[in-house]
Amino acid sequence: MSLPGATADRDAADYVVVGAPLDSTTTFQPGTRFGPERVRRFAETYDDYDHATEQFFSDLFVHDAGDVRPWDDTAAYLDHLTGELRAAVLDDAVPLLVGGEHTVTKAGVEAADPDTLVVLDAHLDLRDEYDGNPLNHACVTRRALDTADRAVILGARTGSPEEWRRAARDDVTVVAPEAVADWLADPPDFTEESVYLSVDIDGADPGFAPGTGTMEPFGLTPREMRGVVRHVAPHCVAFDTVEVNDRDDGQAAALAGKLLREFVYRHAEARND
Amino acid sequence: MSLPGATADRDAADYVVVGAPLDSTTTFQPGTRFGPERVRRFAETYDDYDHATEQFFSDLFVHDAGDVRPWDDTAAYLDHLTGELRAAVLDDAVPLLVGGEHTVTKAGVEAADPDTLVVLDAHLDLRDEYDGNPLNHACVTRRALDTADRAVILGARTGSPEEWRRAARDDVTVVAPEAVADWLADPPDFTEESVYLSVDIDGADPGFAPGTGTMEPFGLTPREMRGVVRHVAPHCVAFDTVEVNDRDDGQAAALAGKLLREFVYRHAEARND
Amino acid sequence: MSLPGATADRDAADYVVVGAPLDSTTTFQPGTRFGPERVRRFAETYDDYDHATEQFFSDLFVHDAGDVRPWDDTAAYLDHLTGELRAAVLDDAVPLLVGGEHTVTKAGVEAADPDTLVVLDAHLDLRDEYDGNPLNHACVTRRALDTADRAVILGARTGSPEEWRRAARDDVTVVAPEAVADWLADPPDFTEESVYLSVDIDGADPGFAPGTGTMEPFGLTPREMRGVVRHVAPHCVAFDTVEVNDRDDGQAAALAGKLLREFVYRHAEARND
Amino acid sequence: MSLPGATADRDAADYVVVGAPLDSTTTFQPGTRFGPERVRRFAETYDDYDHATEQFFSDLFVHDAGDVRPWDDTAAYLDHLTGELRAAVLDDAVPLLVGGEHTVTKAGVEAADPDTLVVLDAHLDLRDEYDGNPLNHACVTRRALDTADRAVILGARTGSPEEWRRAARDDVTVVAPEAVADWLADPPDFTEESVYLSVDIDGADPGFAPGTGTMEPFGLTPREMRGVVRHVAPHCVAFDTVEVNDRDDGQAAALAGKLLREFVYRHAEARND
Amino acid sequence: MSLPGATADRDAADYVVVGAPLDSTTTFQPGTRFGPERVRRFAETYDDYDHATEQFFSDLFVHDAGDVRPWDDTAAYLDHLTGELRAAVLDDAVPLLVGGEHTVTKAGVEAADPDTLVVLDAHLDLRDEYDGNPLNHACVTRRALDTADRAVILGARTGSPEEWRRAARDDVTVVAPEAVADWLADPPDFTEESVYLSVDIDGADPGFAPGTGTMEPFGLTPREMRGVVRHVAPHCVAFDTVEVNDRDDGQAAALAGKLLREFVYRHAEARND
Amino acid sequence: MSLPGATADRDAADYVVVGAPLDSTTTFQPGTRFGPERVRRFAETYDDYDHATEQFFSDLFVHDAGDVRPWDDTAAYLDHLTGELRAAVLDDAVPLLVGGEHTVTKAGVEAADPDTLVVLDAHLDLRDEYDGNPLNHACVTRRALDTADRAVILGARTGSPEEWRRAARDDVTVVAPEAVADWLADPPDFTEESVYLSVDIDGADPGFAPGTGTMEPFGLTPREMRGVVRHVAPHCVAFDTVEVNDRDDGQAAALAGKLLREFVYRHAEARND
Ligand SMILES: [Mn+2]
Ligand SMILES: [Mn+2]
Ligand SMILES: [Mn+2]
Ligand SMILES: [Mn+2]
Ligand SMILES: [Mn+2]
Ligand SMILES: [Mn+2]
Ligand SMILES: [Mn+2]
Ligand SMILES: [Mn+2]
Ligand SMILES: [Mn+2]
Ligand SMILES: [Mn+2]
Ligand SMILES: [Mn+2]
Ligand SMILES: [Mn+2]
Repeated sequence: MSLPGATADRDAADYVVVGAPLDSTTTFQPGTRFGPERVRRFAETYDDYDHATEQFFSDLFVHDAGDVRPWDDTAAYLDHLTGELRAAVLDDAVPLLVGGEHTVTKAGVEAADPDTLVVLDAHLDLRDEYDGNPLNHACVTRRALDTADRAVILGARTGSPEEWRRAARDDVTVVAPEAVADWLADPPDFTEESVYLSVDIDGADPGFAPGTGTMEPFGLTPREMRGVVRHVAPHCVAFDTVEVNDRDDGQAAALAGKLLREFVYRHAEARND
Repeated sequence: MSLPGATADRDAADYVVVGAPLDSTTTFQPGTRFGPERVRRFAETYDDYDHATEQFFSDLFVHDAGDVRPWDDTAAYLDHLTGELRAAVLDDAVPLLVGGEHTVTKAGVEAADPDTLVVLDAHLDLRDEYDGNPLNHACVTRRALDTADRAVILGARTGSPEEWRRAARDDVTVVAPEAVADWLADPPDFTEESVYLSVDIDGADPGFAPGTGTMEPFGLTPREMRGVVRHVAPHCVAFDTVEVNDRDDGQAAALAGKLLREFVYRHAEARND
Repeated sequence: MSLPGATADRDAADYVVVGAPLDSTTTFQPGTRFGPERVRRFAETYDDYDHATEQFFSDLFVHDAGDVRPWDDTAAYLDHLTGELRAAVLDDAVPLLVGGEHTVTKAGVEAADPDTLVVLDAHLDLRDEYDGNPLNHACVTRRALDTADRAVILGARTGSPEEWRRAARDDVTVVAPEAVADWLADPPDFTEESVYLSVDIDGADPGFAPGTGTMEPFGLTPREMRGVVRHVAPHCVAFDTVEVNDRDDGQAAALAGKLLREFVYRHAEARND
Repeated sequence: MSLPGATADRDAADYVVVGAPLDSTTTFQPGTRFGPERVRRFAETYDDYDHATEQFFSDLFVHDAGDVRPWDDTAAYLDHLTGELRAAVLDDAVPLLVGGEHTVTKAGVEAADPDTLVVLDAHLDLRDEYDGNPLNHACVTRRALDTADRAVILGARTGSPEEWRRAARDDVTVVAPEAVADWLADPPDFTEESVYLSVDIDGADPGFAPGTGTMEPFGLTPREMRGVVRHVAPHCVAFDTVEVNDRDDGQAAALAGKLLREFVYRHAEARND
Repeated sequence: MSLPGATADRDAADYVVVGAPLDSTTTFQPGTRFGPERVRRFAETYDDYDHATEQFFSDLFVHDAGDVRPWDDTAAYLDHLTGELRAAVLDDAVPLLVGGEHTVTKAGVEAADPDTLVVLDAHLDLRDEYDGNPLNHACVTRRALDTADRAVILGARTGSPEEWRRAARDDVTVVAPEAVADWLADPPDFTEESVYLSVDIDGADPGFAPGTGTMEPFGLTPREMRGVVRHVAPHCVAFDTVEVNDRDDGQAAALAGKLLREFVYRHAEARND
Repeated sequence: MSLPGATADRDAADYVVVGAPLDSTTTFQPGTRFGPERVRRFAETYDDYDHATEQFFSDLFVHDAGDVRPWDDTAAYLDHLTGELRAAVLDDAVPLLVGGEHTVTKAGVEAADPDTLVVLDAHLDLRDEYDGNPLNHACVTRRALDTADRAVILGARTGSPEEWRRAARDDVTVVAPEAVADWLADPPDFTEESVYLSVDIDGADPGFAPGTGTMEPFGLTPREMRGVVRHVAPHCVAFDTVEVNDRDDGQAAALAGKLLREFVYRHAEARND
């Protein structure tokens, strides 16, 4: 099943959906392997038309390239995924990566090579390694900083001391969930930057997205997440949404799919201005 | 099982609960046929007494007439349901219709013949037809406007272009979810109108009501929905709550049942003033 | 399985976790017997480190004493539980009681003998008896007032007339859910009192904690609950969290576990100042 | 909701369905309080007509008297339930008791006063008391032997040493699950006895009835259970089915409801010969 | 997502999978609209190779044509579906129809025009109409007999008197679940007939396939169903499996998918002899 | 939580339970990481006493050593697990390994060094590697044959051609599910061998154990599995049960836990003769 409305051919595509159902380093509740499938499924009922931007999703040249299935060698898998995404970038298309665990963002960032990473996440994901593994989902923002110049992490509310120390350096900005409303009221300008936007669905409060590997209370509301997507999308070269699993009644997937569409509407509107 | 506290005889009733478990045009997640049963079940633990209005639900002459079971011919079913509800109206009772899909509101509106329809809904439901069917749940507010003079749709956040065009006409007011708080701060006066209040539970954000056919993120909070019910109830000739299904852990049914009770408390208080 | 991070020996403990899986008077949705297990399980992914207080949970001398399993004689069980908790109190440790139904708070209060009870709860729990039973969960705050001098009930939104009458007396303060934000903006001073903090998870709106015996819409947000915990914790002699069951996707347990940790962080920080 | 086809008035009834949603001594997985509701619900799709006996269920004068709701005092509740069932017996009707936990059989047996109790059960239920409580579900066959002269327990596969010792006495016959097929091939004659048939759904293998309080593998097949019902029903003065809960996808309730109907068909056929 | 191993192009296909997610006349538990998706999903782990026939599924020229999505007009939908399936038949391919409700078999039978219909089903499905509707799932075998000369219904255990009367006519053979083992021990010869095999998953005992619209206990074992498929497949011109929904843990879909594969292996082996 | 009845100290233990919640190579439905927890939980209601062998489980010197938690390096984890299990073996205790995915059997076999491996499994697990990984669960019996002299695989019904070729060699015996009843009627003599018994729960038909990674229909009945355990246990030096996950209503865990207990009862009885 393709994402509803993703009707463009690969050649003509401005946006390329790639599912990356990686589910190997989830510490607690597994099931992110079903993330891409669920995001597509719960997007089935969304209207094609967006009133705010007066656009049809199916007019925006979105192609669904299906899933890139993982195998046991995560490093090799990420390299392969990077290749797939870079091909889209080289075709001037914007990758829309649907995880899978957050680790796949490493591939997205390497493919899109942004100046700035904007992340919605409950976690800092700034560990250098986790259980000896540098390719763990808890390390992905740290890995991304090998490529990007800086990171803005919105909604983060937990981390280890070393992560908070890393976060204190100049190239990282952390906005606590309680501060996101203010941030949105007077947001920084991303005009001069190429941005990669990564939506870890656990940035939301678990009440709105229980189907994720590590529920972390006191998170963002869906409207706050949408506000960030609206503000950042026009400056983006790539997008992902990750960490949705199949352990709820569809709330997490419905939210992730809606944010993906919001991204496309806002990005396309800006591009066409 | 009857709605707890709905202890009045039919003859003495001021309010008549009618279940309408129609589940035929749900596009995505079916199960609204279990809506009336679930609303009754999750209302079991609600206190009989309402502190704000100082009334007992079981004193308010509510009768539960049970369910009107659907059959294959939806048009005939709706006619039959209209007849049942009109009988209540003719007895000076207020129908409390519990769906079932939103389509059943057509029967409620025809039975109660209001000036104004107030709807809580994620969707405009203003299509003229859907898949060639004018009796689809996505058309119900349009159908209701054949009877009512105008509609106020609160919480709507999606629709097709033709729905938005229809919504732009004088007889329709749309209040976006983000604007409902302001609307409640200074609400319009419904004193001179007879109102029909229809609560499509998908008006709520999916975090609060995941058990519904089409989850649409960025919706209303339960308190906003209660605010609308409180303001409108005193002017109402009928009420319904629809689109609850059995695909969550009871959140949608608990909310729908509570809003129904709030309606009765506020309507009865106004009537008895 | 012990609560993650509860690594202290009993002798050295400043905090003692005791599970009390009582599930005998739940009126509607049973399952609180699985509450302690679920709270421990969904706490597995929480970071050991708390950024706000700069402390490690595993440094705070928390011991998990396991569960005290109930039997048919609830009165005897509560006496036994009181004994277990009092032993902790006598050792200068703070009991962290994890229910089970709210009834277990009676044991906690008798063991800790506080001046003041602060409760987060949708319900007043001020009945003198329920179905002839004075040890029902709906009576627990009333029972606690046999020991404590006064009670502050935050988030309460329903009760019987006699409960509201009892609540109107001088020794009870009720703060409606809508008023908790204001209460937190200018909270009363608890400095001169010894406080017992009881978190009935149904104080939260059901969207955030559906896994509980009686969902009651229009409740508190997780951040409001955390605000109360932060303010009250430094003055507390004991804590409990109750009414979590296994009938959701983990939201209720995740929230309860997080509030328990917040309590410990804030209490320890104050103690160590 | 009444049991489908239970359309007779109380006065005219040959069979009286009584729900007894007792759920107080379940040791492990609670939820038998939802048993009567689920048995009725999953019986909705059963054909009214039985081909084997050429009878319509709705012609057999079955009345559904609804549920007798439990309260905290189990002993008093059982006495009250006994009274309700005895009233049916005095009217020459056959009680069809739907639990609820197995404890309710005590009321059924006292009301019907049979010579012989035939039980389908994984457990002997021959304890004298459990946790000091003689009214626990694990004691119910022992309690029934205070009234009945003897008991035949089919499908039993576990018990304590004292239960097995009690089972070894002359008034108890135990047929292991593996031996039930042979028992059915040459069953004893019950012609001269009045029999009470009690179906604890956990007699079935958990594969066929997972929704029960204590799954015990290596049990009966549904056809074996039906075979017992068919053989015994003509000699019965009462019937019950117990221990169905809501923790599966309906398998346990579907089986219990079907066995109840089989009982009625076979009993009515014999009565009318 | 395509059925795993269905890798042939449409032009080269010997077998054409068509999903028909019709879910409009389900009386009780809805969800057959998710049947095709679930059958494909739970087939993901099946080995490509079949040891008994020494064939690879992916060598057998199976094409997955995706789903034919229903709309409100069931009659028109069935006509359209018939057209799609007939196109496969005209190309000498064998349709493998995956429901959706049993009603879709009407389309399959009209497309394949068999001499004989063999059905695995708990129900006779021989009604002339149901609630006034001749296109209800409970009428499908009756409808099929407008096209086929005779029907063999294996596993049927319930029906209305008129269905049993219809079943008594010469063109219908009913084999009760208890008699299927004997039937398989000495099965009739289908060599001279063109056969359509329809597997209503509710033919299985609910223990093996709880995810279906109407659970009917006392059914077939999976091995008995496989025995029928093995015997009949070599003589078939078409196959379907229907009535799988999403209300279990995958058991029904796993069984349906496995029987579909067994059909293909046995049919291909015979064809290639 | 420890396995109920596993009350022995490590020093005095004749049997040592070790949980190995490895969940890294599951191809389809993840969740085996919750296997040990669920097996322990659903064993809570089992009677301590076994009538057939007249023994109490809690008298049989079973110690529960808890879980050995996996990390990212599966090879290192298996080595570490082997060490833990070998320590038990060196103390003359019998390891009772509870998975986790089947891969953990490699550790068990290396620790116990048996002559013969007896496996209950739907799958041959005889691949040399899977996706390039020799430590995949689909390779575990192959790996075990590096240590054991031969393998008997009961209930196997699927595999790749190379697996079937490997299975055709002298050191492997495969007994199809259909043939297990006969095998049990006249089983081979294991008296002269030291045996390792591995129970992959997917050996059961999915109707009896849906909570497993890859459901494979047409499997064993629980009684057949018990028959194998009873026959083999007296000759065993170690036991495991694997591939239980949390995606059913407890059936798989209940069965696995019961087979583990059966193993202990039969092994202890033989040892004590
Ligand atoms: Mn992350
Ligand atoms: Mn995260
Ligand atoms: Mn609507
Ligand atoms: Mn809507
Ligand atoms: Mn409470
Ligand atoms: Mn409460
Ligand atoms: Mn029993
Ligand atoms: Mn039992
Ligand atoms: Mn059928
Ligand atoms: Mn059927
Ligand atoms: Mn295996
Ligand atoms: Mn296997």
